[in-house]
Amino acid sequence: MTQDRVGFEARLRQIGAERYHDKHPFHHLLHSGGCTLEQVRAWVINRYYYQSRIPMKDAAFLSRCEDADLRRIWRSRIEDHDGGVEEGGGIRRWLKLAEGVGLDPDYVSSARGVLPATRFAVDAYIRFVRDQPLLPAMASSLTELFAPAIHENRIAGLLKHYAFANDQTIAYFQHRLTEAPKDVAFGLNWVLDHAVTGADQDAAAAALTFKTEVLWAQLDALECAYVTPGRIPPGGWVPGEGML
Amino acid sequence: MTQDRVGFEARLRQIGAERYHDKHPFHHLLHSGGCTLEQVRAWVINRYYYQSRIPMKDAAFLSRCEDADLRRIWRSRIEDHDGGVEEGGGIRRWLKLAEGVGLDPDYVSSARGVLPATRFAVDAYIRFVRDQPLLPAMASSLTELFAPAIHENRIAGLLKHYAFANDQTIAYFQHRLTEAPKDVAFGLNWVLDHAVTGADQDAAAAALTFKTEVLWAQLDALECAYVTPGRIPPGGWVPGEGML
Repeated sequence: MTQDRVGFEARLRQIGAERYHDKHPFHHLLHSGGCTLEQVRAWVINRYYYQSRIPMKDAAFLSRCEDADLRRIWRSRIEDHDGGVEEGGGIRRWLKLAEGVGLDPDYVSSARGVLPATRFAVDAYIRFVRDQPLLPAMASSLTELFAPAIHENRIAGLLKHYAFANDQTIAYFQHRLTEAPKDVAFGLNWVLDHAVTGADQDAAAAALTFKTEVLWAQLDALECAYVTPGRIPPGGWVPGEGML
Repeated sequence: MTQDRVGFEARLRQIGAERYHDKHPFHHLLHSGGCTLEQVRAWVINRYYYQSRIPMKDAAFLSRCEDADLRRIWRSRIEDHDGGVEEGGGIRRWLKLAEGVGLDPDYVSSARGVLPATRFAVDAYIRFVRDQPLLPAMASSLTELFAPAIHENRIAGLLKHYAFANDQTIAYFQHRLTEAPKDVAFGLNWVLDHAVTGADQDAAAAALTFKTEVLWAQLDALECAYVTPGRIPPGGWVPGEGML
């Protein structure tokens, strides 16, 4: 059944309301000050892998995109994350957070110690965007609809509860507060404009659902390895490794 | 057998000396003023398809590239071709050439009328860069080693022989005179640094050979359709279509 524009947008937002990873217990632990410094470090190491693959995901999207105007707009996502040849960009800002929690940024950027389950989830996202039609490929980015709220909670929670939190270490999240809404306003409009059949809308909703699963699986892996039961799988970061 | 750096570079340059499309008869016809305006138009339409897919090819490369520093350098290729959201870029400059020879830029950018053999060759290039290891993927770009000479010949030949040629219509080639050497200096060094085994060097040489075939096949298709024997295949542009 094809929904009208308003109904379809509500359907997409409902997916976030039910499944976005702001509802994951690990985030509650992190934002409420309940994480040990080791658990924060594990999160920083694993989340880096996700952040660092986002430009590859967006390049995979560009590589599928025959419309030069769409490529020109989409390219700013790569610029936001990678930054320039010399400076700037979300990846470098994330490595400032890594340093702030005492990790060697070279260790973190090597992606050694990333949980295998994190790699599987993130790599599945890149493959999804490379292989799926353009509409679901773009719809999978719409978790950004739900990102500003979690970033605001995170900034407040980190600043309140953790000594490592300051303007420099949380700069990544501050930038995302302005970058994500710009990106998602475009992406949401494009998806609403192009998902004109019921089958299109189902595919876009499934893509957004898939993406919420990619995010959730990373936190489940983190919790299992470092919180409860706290059983680090072979290949996973062991506290003490990769320190400054 | 592994060659030293100097020997391997000479091997790569020899591939260009033997196989680069500056030796194709269609280019001699074009640069010497022997093309009819219809033949120039056919070239502009078909070559546009190649130009317009280069950012997709480079995005495919970025999507494979785990090294953020390499991505930051490589990204300028996409910027050079696509330009900004509002202006600039090789694709827009090529469409000025299209207008200059009397073609509707919307027709040209629609890619209707592009010879099927051109599409097959260009699409094979994108797939190659998406699927092959990073070293051959990068080595396939090294035809840029041989590009400045052909662009200089083309600029001189077009200005001398064709009324449509002026600063605005040949701006694409003028820009490539500075863009291509910057890109290829980086690419050549990277390939020479990373092709350290005989198998690597063979793969890089094969990739460059493949790329010369991609370029040559486009001109063969053009000649067959519009010069000798001049038999336009089904789907190919028919003179008179797509005019301003």
